[in-house]
Amino acid sequence: MNLQTTLNEVASEVRSLLGKGSVANYIPALAIADPTKFAMAIATVQGDVFCVGDCDELFSIQSISKVFALTQAFKILDSDLWRRVDRENAGSEFNSLLALELSAGIPRNPLSNAGAIVTTDVILTERGKETKASLLEFFRVRSGNMSIDFNEEIAQLESEHGRRTKALAYLIASFKNLENHPQTVSMLYFYQCAMEASCVDLARSLLFLANKGVCPISQEHVISASQAKRINSILLTCGHYDVSGDFAFRVGLPGKSCVSGAIAALVPGKMAIAAWSPALNKDGVSLVASAALEIFATKTGLSVF
Amino acid sequence: MNLQTTLNEVASEVRSLLGKGSVANYIPALAIADPTKFAMAIATVQGDVFCVGDCDELFSIQSISKVFALTQAFKILDSDLWRRVDRENAGSEFNSLLALELSAGIPRNPLSNAGAIVTTDVILTERGKETKASLLEFFRVRSGNMSIDFNEEIAQLESEHGRRTKALAYLIASFKNLENHPQTVSMLYFYQCAMEASCVDLARSLLFLANKGVCPISQEHVISASQAKRINSILLTCGHYDVSGDFAFRVGLPGKSCVSGAIAALVPGKMAIAAWSPALNKDGVSLVASAALEIFATKTGLSVF
Amino acid sequence: MNLQTTLNEVASEVRSLLGKGSVANYIPALAIADPTKFAMAIATVQGDVFCVGDCDELFSIQSISKVFALTQAFKILDSDLWRRVDRENAGSEFNSLLALELSAGIPRNPLSNAGAIVTTDVILTERGKETKASLLEFFRVRSGNMSIDFNEEIAQLESEHGRRTKALAYLIASFKNLENHPQTVSMLYFYQCAMEASCVDLARSLLFLANKGVCPISQEHVISASQAKRINSILLTCGHYDVSGDFAFRVGLPGKSCVSGAIAALVPGKMAIAAWSPALNKDGVSLVASAALEIFATKTGLSVF
Amino acid sequence: MNLQTTLNEVASEVRSLLGKGSVANYIPALAIADPTKFAMAIATVQGDVFCVGDCDELFSIQSISKVFALTQAFKILDSDLWRRVDRENAGSEFNSLLALELSAGIPRNPLSNAGAIVTTDVILTERGKETKASLLEFFRVRSGNMSIDFNEEIAQLESEHGRRTKALAYLIASFKNLENHPQTVSMLYFYQCAMEASCVDLARSLLFLANKGVCPISQEHVISASQAKRINSILLTCGHYDVSGDFAFRVGLPGKSCVSGAIAALVPGKMAIAAWSPALNKDGVSLVASAALEIFATKTGLSVF
Repeated sequence: MNLQTTLNEVASEVRSLLGKGSVANYIPALAIADPTKFAMAIATVQGDVFCVGDCDELFSIQSISKVFALTQAFKILDSDLWRRVDRENAGSEFNSLLALELSAGIPRNPLSNAGAIVTTDVILTERGKETKASLLEFFRVRSGNMSIDFNEEIAQLESEHGRRTKALAYLIASFKNLENHPQTVSMLYFYQCAMEASCVDLARSLLFLANKGVCPISQEHVISASQAKRINSILLTCGHYDVSGDFAFRVGLPGKSCVSGAIAALVPGKMAIAAWSPALNKDGVSLVASAALEIFATKTGLSVF
Repeated sequence: MNLQTTLNEVASEVRSLLGKGSVANYIPALAIADPTKFAMAIATVQGDVFCVGDCDELFSIQSISKVFALTQAFKILDSDLWRRVDRENAGSEFNSLLALELSAGIPRNPLSNAGAIVTTDVILTERGKETKASLLEFFRVRSGNMSIDFNEEIAQLESEHGRRTKALAYLIASFKNLENHPQTVSMLYFYQCAMEASCVDLARSLLFLANKGVCPISQEHVISASQAKRINSILLTCGHYDVSGDFAFRVGLPGKSCVSGAIAALVPGKMAIAAWSPALNKDGVSLVASAALEIFATKTGLSVF
Repeated sequence: MNLQTTLNEVASEVRSLLGKGSVANYIPALAIADPTKFAMAIATVQGDVFCVGDCDELFSIQSISKVFALTQAFKILDSDLWRRVDRENAGSEFNSLLALELSAGIPRNPLSNAGAIVTTDVILTERGKETKASLLEFFRVRSGNMSIDFNEEIAQLESEHGRRTKALAYLIASFKNLENHPQTVSMLYFYQCAMEASCVDLARSLLFLANKGVCPISQEHVISASQAKRINSILLTCGHYDVSGDFAFRVGLPGKSCVSGAIAALVPGKMAIAAWSPALNKDGVSLVASAALEIFATKTGLSVF
Repeated sequence: MNLQTTLNEVASEVRSLLGKGSVANYIPALAIADPTKFAMAIATVQGDVFCVGDCDELFSIQSISKVFALTQAFKILDSDLWRRVDRENAGSEFNSLLALELSAGIPRNPLSNAGAIVTTDVILTERGKETKASLLEFFRVRSGNMSIDFNEEIAQLESEHGRRTKALAYLIASFKNLENHPQTVSMLYFYQCAMEASCVDLARSLLFLANKGVCPISQEHVISASQAKRINSILLTCGHYDVSGDFAFRVGLPGKSCVSGAIAALVPGKMAIAAWSPALNKDGVSLVASAALEIFATKTGLSVF
């Protein structure tokens, strides 16, 4: 299997889909994204990188940052983390608030907005005012690209428009499951969402999850092999909101989608993959990136199942 | 890795747990189960079988029968099946009815009680009065054990006490997502639950899911490789009710639990595993079988992640 | 205030609305109702009756029968009734099942379908095989019209199509809040719904609730004054599903709507009112009968507020 | 009926209950309330005032302020108010957030916390920076007591601990049903809750609702007779959270409870009643004030039913 050839074929097959779907428009910085852009990158645990399309384009990584927040919070609290956030799929989206009610403020999983507020709170308690810088540093070191930065405009706009996220933060706080102020935690969450990277950066940054917890770029033992495996299980069961089952069904790999149109996926022991195209399908997942990953999985037979 | 040795070690390690948890007691036939029983069996795609413990003991396979019903309904309708049942985790248990309401009678997934009613309805429409016999035949041929049979007493008791299941059937029917009478479909569902087998039978019967859809016992192409892979994805995301995420986290294999204390799991390409011990933990999953699978996964490193 | 003149004025004012809305069509016997029919009748505690429109037309009283079932169950169990059914508004309709789940089978109120199943079950336990006849007798004696009868066709059709009601009955039974078989209780419920009467019958039959529990027609002390007052409170807070607040807001009288297009209302100490017109608004309440009662309340100033 | 004698009897009968229940303790200012205090006052539309017990004691009026906010918002927007808030009971408490989700940010009724946020927002849009002063002025003029004031400490503590209220405000804002900033609206809400008055003040201040919208103290036409009647209907159906039906059942009068232990009730055309005792029952309603109103209603036969 020649991965570059496969990527080229995938890019060719999804071309006809470019322009379908709708770019997220709740903030101007996302609404201006060009829906005809597409990029896909693969980073292998051996250190090879393959890419196709607009691989130099930067985009905010949005909800994919929840994977980093989970990793760091899991490292800090280990299994005590599960006292503060569960690891089950939330069912349908409208349940997020209902679930919080019924579970008395314990988010269903760390890849929901509510869950990421809790993991960010864990990190904030541990690192205090170093938190913001350390969140950026984590992504930079994982990807080996020290020029990765926050997009300040996006962070501010997310905060301004992120009323639902703040509602979640206050609700969690009302159940005493936040150790820091809801506004502070929310702002850190918005900053993580506003970290900008390319598909290559993104694929490289997640390699530690395909490599038993060891980052092949920095050689750092980020987390244990057991923890990496378990994060992958959460990605598979909860990585795509209430269409996680659909992604597992179609693609069969642990992954995480986000509103800017990126999707990251992992082939345990082998590689990390990132695909990006801004226009979303009705479920809020990138229409083209999703198709690209499905085609890739079919062509390569790479699936955990 | 010597599988028999590993099984022996697992059996030894879970011994101290025997007797913990509670046997399901909603019908006498389940309540009388001996909570100190334990069995575990492995069937490999090469045709080997390994087992430990009470491997000759028969138990009703209860919800694990949903995997067979899903397989047969998927074979009958192929992708049209997904118009009648979704393939997403339902979130918390109480959501089952709420989800049915909000989705206008489309069950969240085929491994929920509601979903199994729909898959059974699909089979009933296709096979008519041959249905009951054909459901048994499917299990018999898959396991290579033609002496497998319904436990008539359990079927009748399940029907008598299965008021919630009948409520689901009527509710689905009220949304016009049943083609047959709710009572008929429910009764067939209860019969499937009442099929009795040993751990060895169970492990053998599921091998086709670990073997790209081909049953190594009958050599039959039960379903396509693609369908098998996709059923496995549903097992992983939805196989254990609202603790599916927990099972994926701890064991990392596609699987299905049931109220009689059995759990089946699959290692794609390699083997099917069945573990059984009647006493359940607070989530309704066999306490000892669950621990046994977790220990087995840790010892062998067999995990899809 | 001349009640006949007022009724004539009301009839005149609603004429332009006749034909708007939609007749319930889930069973043919309801679907064939003529949407241009309209009747309104007033029965006073002094024994006077006033009516306008199609006052000889018979219609099935459907959910208004829940008021009779509540009355009889309340008489049988007195305050013990509230261990089996609550007396709170259920919030939105979809909550009915969710509420049953969360309350472990205790319906939110006796005027919901779930609640009427419980009150009917109470009556059935008390009266055994006399139940069906006694339910009819109660309505006959209250209205002073011994020719009132079940519409057998409607009862059978309701049963055939009433899958949601049966789902509720099974669900309540699954929580052990039914003493009789779900199918038996459901059938009795459908029979009550299928009792046919005119607006005059209906107004007369409810007079005991406006008259401190004493039926002015039979002189019977049906229930205590305190119980009558309390049933009226339940009519006001729960009489119109999830638009009960709207009815209280617009009309300001205790009342009960039903799917055949009838609405009954009470002016405590003074009179009972029945209005009927088959076409329903989007909330499932008779569009014209609702308007007629609002106009009547405005013209007469009769409101409990 | 001598109202003073009746009040004395009521006070005597509830004495044995004093000390039962639990004082709200989410903020210190409420937790220090003396649970043995009790007061009850009646103000008639003729101008008479009767009282018994600790009638000079001041308490924060908490949720009873929602009645004033509703009155003012209804006066400002008239029937357009119902585009922004519904007037139906929310069902059980946990539904508040779920209901907001399903109704896309339209609170179920103006007497819920979510609803009061919307009515306060309506007032804020109309009055701008005069709002805070005008809210106090409204209460002062209604009661004829110009010394009524905010308890600044309570307002600040409510704001600090009112994370759930802020969650609601942000959630409503996320659905674009707030015209002002969630924090500003929340703070104004907390100030209203922190207005302190005696039972006499409270009874007098609500007389306009028993007097067709005319305040007998200031002679002001606060709202129309029709609006007053309709506010009363909302008090009856929604005035006591998810135990509104219970209050209607037991007391039979429009009313509003609050967490500081006060309950206000209205006898249309006749009087306003306020009862207060700090300890709450399990439903969050004053145990003694609730009993006092029930006894009062029974003794006097004053009930809208």
